[in-house]
Amino acid sequence: MQPEAFDTQPLVGLDDVRAAAVRIRGTCLRTPLLPASWSPGGPVWVKAESLQATGAFKLRGATNAIARLSAEQRRRGVVTHSSGNHGSALAYAARQVGIGATVVVPHGAPQVKVDLIAGAGAELVRVPAADRMNACADISARTGAVEIPPYDHPDVIAGQGTVGLEIAEDLADVQMVLVPVGGGGLIAGVAVALRALVPGVRIIGCEPALAGDAAASLSTGTKQTLSVSEAARTAADGLRATTLGELTWPHVQALVDDIVTVEEDAIAAAVRVLAAGSRLVAEPSGAVTTAALMTRADRLPGGRTVVVMSGGNVDPRWYAGVLAGPVGGEAACAR
Amino acid sequence: MQPEAFDTQPLVGLDDVRAAAVRIRGTCLRTPLLPASWSPGGPVWVKAESLQATGAFKLRGATNAIARLSAEQRRRGVVTHSSGNHGSALAYAARQVGIGATVVVPHGAPQVKVDLIAGAGAELVRVPAADRMNACADISARTGAVEIPPYDHPDVIAGQGTVGLEIAEDLADVQMVLVPVGGGGLIAGVAVALRALVPGVRIIGCEPALAGDAAASLSTGTKQTLSVSEAARTAADGLRATTLGELTWPHVQALVDDIVTVEEDAIAAAVRVLAAGSRLVAEPSGAVTTAALMTRADRLPGGRTVVVMSGGNVDPRWYAGVLAGPVGGEAACAR
Repeated sequence: MQPEAFDTQPLVGLDDVRAAAVRIRGTCLRTPLLPASWSPGGPVWVKAESLQATGAFKLRGATNAIARLSAEQRRRGVVTHSSGNHGSALAYAARQVGIGATVVVPHGAPQVKVDLIAGAGAELVRVPAADRMNACADISARTGAVEIPPYDHPDVIAGQGTVGLEIAEDLADVQMVLVPVGGGGLIAGVAVALRALVPGVRIIGCEPALAGDAAASLSTGTKQTLSVSEAARTAADGLRATTLGELTWPHVQALVDDIVTVEEDAIAAAVRVLAAGSRLVAEPSGAVTTAALMTRADRLPGGRTVVVMSGGNVDPRWYAGVLAGPVGGEAACAR
Repeated sequence: MQPEAFDTQPLVGLDDVRAAAVRIRGTCLRTPLLPASWSPGGPVWVKAESLQATGAFKLRGATNAIARLSAEQRRRGVVTHSSGNHGSALAYAARQVGIGATVVVPHGAPQVKVDLIAGAGAELVRVPAADRMNACADISARTGAVEIPPYDHPDVIAGQGTVGLEIAEDLADVQMVLVPVGGGGLIAGVAVALRALVPGVRIIGCEPALAGDAAASLSTGTKQTLSVSEAARTAADGLRATTLGELTWPHVQALVDDIVTVEEDAIAAAVRVLAAGSRLVAEPSGAVTTAALMTRADRLPGGRTVVVMSGGNVDPRWYAGVLAGPVGGEAACAR
């Protein structure tokens, strides 16, 4: 091993993802790949991560990261900051092995997700959004709890990569895989697995146009950052990360073919399609890949396609409004 | 074999279900058993049949029945009468093997399901509800198409029984299984498999109180029949069969422990729980088992429980109204 390896963190490898797959067995569901009869074009399958016990893929990374802790680290418990699915995933995974979890939740986090974090047994600490990283570090310093970040961590990336491993196992001749992009943990892991296992597969990130930092980063070659208020404009609350991570960004640069953006009305339409056509409750972040398929076909290579539907934890009122009609709750009620 | 065996049709057996499991592989999804974190009591799993390509368990029976046809029968195609999921399942299964399907659809069938039947490639024949059996027989007589009834057929029962087979494989120590009851095809098949494979398991049917013919049949020991207009009162359109079948009824009598009824508001509440807690789109018929768990615990033996969630093809407006609030669409809009 060269000393330089300590200067820049190496990319996660296929072996890391394979090891994660063994560790998460029993806690995480091997989710089905559902044929999508609603596809307007070629054959499409939905990788339904909403079926995980916590309703999102995040359980994979959290479970793997916790499984990697030493006995001494476990005694100290874990801490993270999250406005949503990573928080409940970490709490759930921690409870499975009987250790404590603290989740720093920024003000403004969706109530449905705060409830899930609390319901999974975490200790909640509410802080202003700008303070969440510091609050997390403070708790870790004070209590010794091990910090498990939402995406920028090799064990988290390797855990999320098991989604890609399962896609390759179930559909060895897949040609295009669409993956939501927030902080980049999911697409980084999925790309590690698929790039290694499926020759020629095209890996495409999807994000809301209103939080399009990753698309801008990939097209300019320089990691872009949004303000919190800019990223907060999208309904896709799981994809409001203001920038890719220091570790996920080199994975995206090295392994991802393209990143496309989708409009908010396309996300809502995709939520409806996934409910009516695949009988899946999708949160807006989970629907961006279906939205891309429906509205960005011009930009996509096509072929046998998997859309990763990343989660289903959605505000019930927003969801009912979207299902009632194409222009949202108020309009639906006016009819 | 005794000559008497030809007088009364024997019950479907475990071997029939096992053979069906082999035949349906590739067309039907082996659906996941999802741990239900929303369970108020002991551990509960949801058998999510809404994830089948046609959105309901019916694809299993239809696929098995078609696989059993001779080459000569296949040339003549298939016909059935259905207001819903059996029709789209038969059309879908027929298309998979390249044969024609005609579906007699009674007036008053839910539009969402009529669209699915047409979308699956069936030829539709619309008739008054009272004429559907005759219309089906006429088409069969005229065209030679083989009639595949919705539930009262050994191949259909054996196909639906694969749901029970999978439950036994995935949760060998299951103690209670709740199954929706309409015409009785699903519970008959599930009971055949589970009674043979899981000693001591309690098999409980669930149906709407407004269409409670099966509960009345089992408690009186005589097959009861409702009028079409009585059965039509429940929102659970998949469970509006007015009576059990000639073949399903002896299965229910011999193999089912109890049948409980649920109220309409409990069905709506269960639809909400399945959306928020399991991220599954449930049609009202699919939600009766969860409704029973939530409201009929006094009548249930309890223990490690599986609720069979039979389908997810729901009218989008009804669904949005139910999700918006506990008293339905209008009230939700008034808030």
